[in-house]
Amino acid sequence: MEAMTIKQFIQNKLNLSIDGGNLPFPVHQKSFKKNEILTGLGEIERKVYFIVSGIAEINIFKDGDNRIVDFYFPNNFVCALTSFLLQEPSEAELVALTDLETEYLNYDDAQKAYQTSLLANQLGRKLVEEAYLVKFQREKDFLTKTADVRYLELMKARPDLLKQLPVHKIAEYLGIHPESLSRIRKAIIS
Amino acid sequence: MEAMTIKQFIQNKLNLSIDGGNLPFPVHQKSFKKNEILTGLGEIERKVYFIVSGIAEINIFKDGDNRIVDFYFPNNFVCALTSFLLQEPSEAELVALTDLETEYLNYDDAQKAYQTSLLANQLGRKLVEEAYLVKFQREKDFLTKTADVRYLELMKARPDLLKQLPVHKIAEYLGIHPESLSRIRKAIIS
Repeated sequence: MEAMTIKQFIQNKLNLSIDGGNLPFPVHQKSFKKNEILTGLGEIERKVYFIVSGIAEINIFKDGDNRIVDFYFPNNFVCALTSFLLQEPSEAELVALTDLETEYLNYDDAQKAYQTSLLANQLGRKLVEEAYLVKFQREKDFLTKTADVRYLELMKARPDLLKQLPVHKIAEYLGIHPESLSRIRKAIIS
Repeated sequence: MEAMTIKQFIQNKLNLSIDGGNLPFPVHQKSFKKNEILTGLGEIERKVYFIVSGIAEINIFKDGDNRIVDFYFPNNFVCALTSFLLQEPSEAELVALTDLETEYLNYDDAQKAYQTSLLANQLGRKLVEEAYLVKFQREKDFLTKTADVRYLELMKARPDLLKQLPVHKIAEYLGIHPESLSRIRKAIIS
């Protein structure tokens, strides 16, 4: 997949037209090193990131050490969304899983654009719709599909992931023990 | 709480301004009798309802008989949201828990308004943001709060509910057995 900017994503992926060629909010760039924290636990999310290259990880701490892990890939927006929407301390942590190139926009600029810009609201609406659907689908998968099936689906959807990530990360994502993942892999190969 | 229309809700609750006084989509009215189905399992959701009076119930079937129950009260929008967004058969069922007065808008009218209307996108964005947050909060409550605490919070937030609904419905909502609810109630009174 080709690297995109926010502007290209809006035009080419969402098919939204950018009036006069200017986005209704300023866009900034930032790079992160592997393992660097973008949004820490307890921090108030003030940015929405767009991943130009690399992989980001979100850890949602549910109950003590119990957490839900999710990955975000290039050409996707990511932030600690509940914290962003409520402007309350985040219960999620956003981390660079590999070196990361991002574009981002600031909370205040987004809120200002929401007052008057059709495009900003179309974009915000589509991103939250997508976030809602992803959350729903992920939850459903956990309840209805075995780890084997979820691993096979991940292999199919994200073959690049399996090359870039250590086994224990993939096991975490699937919500299983690394040893169980080894067993699943061996069963698939044989 | 006073009964509102969609128009009043947009102006008074969301503080959005309605250009020229006209909504960017047609609004229709429909009444339902208690137990009537608004959106059936497997049906594609083509409407977004606004509850003027009464209570609606959503059942999300997770795994066989295992389901999540949620209630929707006056001055709230409700629909089988995943089905509405994807235009795929619904895995949720929307039912009138009491006699219901609703206003609603149609899927096609919403999509058309999304093309050009700032207000339609502001409204759509805010409703999906709210749906995302409610889903997140409910999930978190289930993982982190006991049934006692959730019952007390429900009593505080919705004292009217406890008068209008049979015990087994409230137990379903809390995800506990009706007998456990009786025990909780006795413990609170004593």
